Amino acid sequence: MNRPQALRRQRLLAELPASSVAVIAAGNEQPRSNDTEYPFRSNSDFCYLTAFPEPDALLILAKDATGKCSELLVCRDKDTEKEVWQGRRFGPGQAEQQFGLAAVSISEQQAQLLAAMKGKQQLWFCFGEDEALIHLLNECQQQIQRTPRQSELAPQQLCNLRPLLSELRLYKDEHEISLMQQAASISAGAHKATMQLCKPGMQEYQLEACIQYHCAMQGARYQAYNAIVGGGENACILHYTENNAELCDGDLVLIDAGCELNGYAADITRTFPVNGRFSKEQAALYQLVLDAQLAALAEIKPGSSFALATKACYKVLTEGLHQLGILQGELAELIEAEAAKPWMIHSLGHWLGLDVHDVGSYQPKGAVPEPGVKNRPFEPGMVLTVEPGLYIPKGSDTDPKWWGIGIRIEDDVLVTAEGHRNLTAAVPKTIAEIEALMAMDTADAGNHYGQFD
Amino acid sequence: MNRPQALRRQRLLAELPASSVAVIAAGNEQPRSNDTEYPFRSNSDFCYLTAFPEPDALLILAKDATGKCSELLVCRDKDTEKEVWQGRRFGPGQAEQQFGLAAVSISEQQAQLLAAMKGKQQLWFCFGEDEALIHLLNECQQQIQRTPRQSELAPQQLCNLRPLLSELRLYKDEHEISLMQQAASISAGAHKATMQLCKPGMQEYQLEACIQYHCAMQGARYQAYNAIVGGGENACILHYTENNAELCDGDLVLIDAGCELNGYAADITRTFPVNGRFSKEQAALYQLVLDAQLAALAEIKPGSSFALATKACYKVLTEGLHQLGILQGELAELIEAEAAKPWMIHSLGHWLGLDVHDVGSYQPKGAVPEPGVKNRPFEPGMVLTVEPGLYIPKGSDTDPKWWGIGIRIEDDVLVTAEGHRNLTAAVPKTIAEIEALMAMDTADAGNHYGQFD
Amino acid sequence: MNRPQALRRQRLLAELPASSVAVIAAGNEQPRSNDTEYPFRSNSDFCYLTAFPEPDALLILAKDATGKCSELLVCRDKDTEKEVWQGRRFGPGQAEQQFGLAAVSISEQQAQLLAAMKGKQQLWFCFGEDEALIHLLNECQQQIQRTPRQSELAPQQLCNLRPLLSELRLYKDEHEISLMQQAASISAGAHKATMQLCKPGMQEYQLEACIQYHCAMQGARYQAYNAIVGGGENACILHYTENNAELCDGDLVLIDAGCELNGYAADITRTFPVNGRFSKEQAALYQLVLDAQLAALAEIKPGSSFALATKACYKVLTEGLHQLGILQGELAELIEAEAAKPWMIHSLGHWLGLDVHDVGSYQPKGAVPEPGVKNRPFEPGMVLTVEPGLYIPKGSDTDPKWWGIGIRIEDDVLVTAEGHRNLTAAVPKTIAEIEALMAMDTADAGNHYGQFD
Amino acid sequence: MNRPQALRRQRLLAELPASSVAVIAAGNEQPRSNDTEYPFRSNSDFCYLTAFPEPDALLILAKDATGKCSELLVCRDKDTEKEVWQGRRFGPGQAEQQFGLAAVSISEQQAQLLAAMKGKQQLWFCFGEDEALIHLLNECQQQIQRTPRQSELAPQQLCNLRPLLSELRLYKDEHEISLMQQAASISAGAHKATMQLCKPGMQEYQLEACIQYHCAMQGARYQAYNAIVGGGENACILHYTENNAELCDGDLVLIDAGCELNGYAADITRTFPVNGRFSKEQAALYQLVLDAQLAALAEIKPGSSFALATKACYKVLTEGLHQLGILQGELAELIEAEAAKPWMIHSLGHWLGLDVHDVGSYQPKGAVPEPGVKNRPFEPGMVLTVEPGLYIPKGSDTDPKWWGIGIRIEDDVLVTAEGHRNLTAAVPKTIAEIEALMAMDTADAGNHYGQFD
Repeated sequence: MNRPQALRRQRLLAELPASSVAVIAAGNEQPRSNDTEYPFRSNSDFCYLTAFPEPDALLILAKDATGKCSELLVCRDKDTEKEVWQGRRFGPGQAEQQFGLAAVSISEQQAQLLAAMKGKQQLWFCFGEDEALIHLLNECQQQIQRTPRQSELAPQQLCNLRPLLSELRLYKDEHEISLMQQAASISAGAHKATMQLCKPGMQEYQLEACIQYHCAMQGARYQAYNAIVGGGENACILHYTENNAELCDGDLVLIDAGCELNGYAADITRTFPVNGRFSKEQAALYQLVLDAQLAALAEIKPGSSFALATKACYKVLTEGLHQLGILQGELAELIEAEAAKPWMIHSLGHWLGLDVHDVGSYQPKGAVPEPGVKNRPFEPGMVLTVEPGLYIPKGSDTDPKWWGIGIRIEDDVLVTAEGHRNLTAAVPKTIAEIEALMAMDTADAGNHYGQFD
Repeated sequence: MNRPQALRRQRLLAELPASSVAVIAAGNEQPRSNDTEYPFRSNSDFCYLTAFPEPDALLILAKDATGKCSELLVCRDKDTEKEVWQGRRFGPGQAEQQFGLAAVSISEQQAQLLAAMKGKQQLWFCFGEDEALIHLLNECQQQIQRTPRQSELAPQQLCNLRPLLSELRLYKDEHEISLMQQAASISAGAHKATMQLCKPGMQEYQLEACIQYHCAMQGARYQAYNAIVGGGENACILHYTENNAELCDGDLVLIDAGCELNGYAADITRTFPVNGRFSKEQAALYQLVLDAQLAALAEIKPGSSFALATKACYKVLTEGLHQLGILQGELAELIEAEAAKPWMIHSLGHWLGLDVHDVGSYQPKGAVPEPGVKNRPFEPGMVLTVEPGLYIPKGSDTDPKWWGIGIRIEDDVLVTAEGHRNLTAAVPKTIAEIEALMAMDTADAGNHYGQFD
Repeated sequence: MNRPQALRRQRLLAELPASSVAVIAAGNEQPRSNDTEYPFRSNSDFCYLTAFPEPDALLILAKDATGKCSELLVCRDKDTEKEVWQGRRFGPGQAEQQFGLAAVSISEQQAQLLAAMKGKQQLWFCFGEDEALIHLLNECQQQIQRTPRQSELAPQQLCNLRPLLSELRLYKDEHEISLMQQAASISAGAHKATMQLCKPGMQEYQLEACIQYHCAMQGARYQAYNAIVGGGENACILHYTENNAELCDGDLVLIDAGCELNGYAADITRTFPVNGRFSKEQAALYQLVLDAQLAALAEIKPGSSFALATKACYKVLTEGLHQLGILQGELAELIEAEAAKPWMIHSLGHWLGLDVHDVGSYQPKGAVPEPGVKNRPFEPGMVLTVEPGLYIPKGSDTDPKWWGIGIRIEDDVLVTAEGHRNLTAAVPKTIAEIEALMAMDTADAGNHYGQFD
Repeated sequence: MNRPQALRRQRLLAELPASSVAVIAAGNEQPRSNDTEYPFRSNSDFCYLTAFPEPDALLILAKDATGKCSELLVCRDKDTEKEVWQGRRFGPGQAEQQFGLAAVSISEQQAQLLAAMKGKQQLWFCFGEDEALIHLLNECQQQIQRTPRQSELAPQQLCNLRPLLSELRLYKDEHEISLMQQAASISAGAHKATMQLCKPGMQEYQLEACIQYHCAMQGARYQAYNAIVGGGENACILHYTENNAELCDGDLVLIDAGCELNGYAADITRTFPVNGRFSKEQAALYQLVLDAQLAALAEIKPGSSFALATKACYKVLTEGLHQLGILQGELAELIEAEAAKPWMIHSLGHWLGLDVHDVGSYQPKGAVPEPGVKNRPFEPGMVLTVEPGLYIPKGSDTDPKWWGIGIRIEDDVLVTAEGHRNLTAAVPKTIAEIEALMAMDTADAGNHYGQFD
């Protein structure tokens, strides 16, 4: 068996102590309105370990007292009548063949869980995440616990699977890196097309639609997160997703969007002028953010860390803001005090993978958790975002000429043995490149998928 | 105050007996993966009565023992720090101004509910729908119930608000009809553009993307439900939403999709040849479904009913299937026995409104509920779908030349005093119209939004 | 069928509107420690309507749309193995024979509830009382509600059964009055025996044990509530149940205790000197409470009310306290202001029946609930307690000679057409009677049950 | 601090690993009917570690990463008004003084739990026992888990405190042994008095009342479990607690009852003739059970086990039943096959302590749990019951002369270095002793507490 998911399950089982059972759930469909649902999105851990796409499934990984391992997928049955109405299902038989995992019917779920749990010392699951799973495991635990003479057979320890799984997911394998490069490239193309489409008078959500459309036409049906399309002052709201304002001549627009491919996220931000030309102030601040991003990117390499890259970023930002007169005082002291922080209150970046804010500790393995500290040394195989910004809402304590400008530039970066690879380098980010792209004849963009081939 | 929502609240309050309180919740954001959420979609009843767009809000409508009515919106507070991170909020002050409703902070939610409930005879809410609301109301009820000497102040009856609200929502007002016509027109345009774009070799989800894109570009950012795009045999799965197969030369493709505008749904189905030309068998069955739809549409008028329209539809289908040799035997008996049913197992249509399967009883007011019976007389102001179909999956008990064909034709219809108005008539549905549209130069479609104006 | 329970069920069903179902649960055994339980005590309503003594049972009363009524008991099955370990069970067969009620196995509980609820307009149960029952009914309601096309069959109103049942239980039938007289007489005997046993140096809980023992020997195995045995100052704690102090020479002791017979409560309080002789101060206050009780008892008759009896009681108390110098000022004003209230903060009495604080509204039928108001006119068949008291804890704002005295005198009274019958008149309450009884040779009391016959 | 509870807490803390927190709850009052409660009985673990008698309290034991330990009691506040109505409370201040434990108000419960849990690696509590505690801890865990950036501070392991506490409680300390001897002696006296009182025509529950009364008069207010008083055939129901039948001349009666003293249980069973004289058949079977008990008692010593004592017991029973003709066949084979088992289906005995069925594994420490196996070597300090029996219900496959006889003889035994000490030896158990005691003038028994001193 050389499916990547099989190797991941093996790696997870290797981490579990003897006499353990771990349970991971696919999750359920979420209602949208009345009898309609949102498109189902599998739980990331479950996806990582199985690639099985249906809801209501469960993965049970067990290691007995002698260290012998077993794997079991629990899934919905075939059901001709329901399938005519609601869509096809694999059923245990096909699931077994196509996903390389022993599989049983959901009707055996409780029995299989009880059998897997009885006599095991530890039960592993992700604490505080999937309430339905927690409820189910709790019921099974109680059932054993309360059966006369059996209560000692119930697991005596409940352990959080999150750290173990997060640690595995933090280091991307070849299969994942390939998917993430594809997701990044598709998203990059969509950002470029959207820059070309943008014109004063359009609505923010229309740019969002353009991103979605181009991603889907290139093979990525869903977005990894709700796109942020913020024109002018809206860019200063970090997770602005209303996207319902008109884009105005003379404003910048910030687009933070990335597609999802086989569950993997891209996460790109670009900021550009609605009318295709940066104003003097916009250009000054934009160049500063870009310089800060380049300084931060230079720090993405094995042995460095978010902490070090952030320091490099803030140094550039502080120098620039001082030079522009936005920060005043002694430069050295300003740098020391990270005086730029109020203008960029978010952190420099985050892990990226099956989740846009991917799992993985930001501190070295085994460190005592310290909220906000991000000093884990980068290692090859990690993927992360680098996304400095500057946000100057109206009313800020600066010259009003800067007001209403919000800028962020974000790339997705793979740490390699040599340093890093920028997965999203294909989207222009210099002022010159952006203005050139936006000046091209936009008819091309629209035609693109009309001439499908 | 002549907002339509205010009138609706008045109408609902008029239906409530004295000494009543009704509570309607906006609902909450649903998680998608890790810390990301699906785009929020307000509860339909709440939207109907308030148009307030934020999650975590509550509407409390009360009528005291003397018949005096009061209305209260409970909503999230303004919060500068959270708003920078998560987006703007109205807060009670702005909410009051913009939505014409007394409003208080969510921090007073429990206190306001308790005050509104105490001493009222009846508590109204929608049974079995919003678990968080039910839990909240239950807690309040228990709190009064268990306060020494107060237990008699708790409402002594809990009443299902669903029938009252459904009855109101079934009759669309002018404001609703106007929105539904817009939603229908936007969706119609998207269907036309998608027909033009379709080519063998494309993926089903790319047609879905095209629908979404065109709707968004015309002002409808969300779809009312997950689009069904089924090529060939996939069309025989009624709610097929995988949409991940390639569209093949020689197959039909069925698209069932409609946008959502200000909460209101459109719901259109068209079936057309992937390569632009119907085969002989496809044409024969398609024409039959179209004839059945026209026969059913002729029955959409005041005093008629789904039952009567269905009868007309099945009559045409049975005659046609008999003529094509798919049904054999005595025609009169076949019609009597509704012998076409196995080839169209779904019902002819459903109410349409804020929900794609909109609320409203299918039986006359006050009738004893009888599952499956749909004999409510049509009245002006009702909106419904008319969507006959034929589905002949592989292996069916017919000549194999019919296998793998699934067809549905669906329009959205407003019942008027004179008969009905077809809101989605703009999408071609005759064989000739479809083939003509698909033969046009498709470059136009792609260009459309490139030349934004 | 002329069982009293059958008549009560008929009376309840007569009160329910057509298309209703009412559900009443017996309740479950409550754990005491590890695998041991408290003695099971059936829910009072369930006991009232069935007399069936086992836990985990359910009574379903239904009235269909035409007014036809049905009754069903759900109970545990016979189970030879479990019965050898845990005790005998009736099982549906024997239950049916002995309790005159159609009965089915608990394994059919859910199915029978669903069948009884489907299509009914109203579901009746006691709000806010039995969480397990509420949970069960909620599950059934949800199950109907969420079955496609069935949701309209779920009851559209949930109604509080409490007021209906309370109203019935408020008027005691012949069978109840007979049981309550027995419970009162047994408790009276126990109080007398305990007065005789009491000596300085005994522990409070030993008097409690004496009460229990004498009740059990006369046929009442359980007490209706935890006995209050408070010596000296402890009598000033109204629901003092620690009962773990030594009884001191010179103190009074207050005993508030009554047995339970077939579920029916007695509730008697007597206060007497530990050493058999009242001191001067004790006698003065005791006589005052007794006078107040007699004044209140004189008001127990049809047409009077707790409010009127309380007024009479407070008048006597106020006059007496004024005379003793504990209240100072203008007597008329003191009476007007109910100046005695701080010395007797509890109310004069309460309904008595299957519960010691029995159900039943204290206001006229149909009155708007007003906490604390007790103006319901007495009617024949009502049973209630009359229990004035005086409590002067140490540190009170009086002459210290009164400190540490707590007195209450409580009798159980049946309202009759002519006035009332005191069910507990057999326990001495004048100073002379008490001192005489306590002066008798106590050996007799001890011997009583030794010479069992 | 040399309170025994303080030493026990120290011992428990010594067993916990660094970075742990353990939480033990006192439990809550359980409702009996309407607004009345059962007498509160503290959770045994909580009682063992604190001796604090009030409900709603919590003990938090913590050990930080450096091994530093802390203890905290959470308890109800003083509340003058509530105390006048419901009884006195210690409040944190008095609790601290009287129980030698840092104490805080229940209003700080959540905050103190959060503080104690944050940053700890393990959270210890008894799995599957106190639902309210589990709910509370779960809420705290979730709250930390879901606080942005804090989730890693939540305990990553939940560990079952039951095995640790059970192991400690299994070995009784001096303070416990002294209390258990007192409980045993009080119960022994009660059994003797009840034997003397018993006469044909009495009700079973009257003997129960007699047991309770004598225990209470000697200082033990509560029974450790619901007494079993079974006359004749009723003795064959192992946990018969109906106790509502008449005791008949010629029958045996089995009394299984023991008091609770400061939480510690006694558990004594005696079987004797209702009329004071054993019949021939009764005597034959009784002597056999007694011989079996003596054989089993001879095996209660360090190094032996329940398994060995059971073997000795069954050997005697089998030989005797063979001799009486109840078992037929080859004696050696019968012994080998434990052929007596169907006549004594329960086990020989159980641990005894704060619970009548006390906690403690029946297998050696660290053994893989095997339901039903009881091979743990006895050690000094363990307390257990030895209670063989014989039960021959009507219809058994024997000569009818044996029918309706149920016999059990149970003593409480402390394992000592030298062998064992029988804590309940004071109750007669030979035929001669029993008949002699029952022939004495019973007036004495009744007089006993009349002449209180």
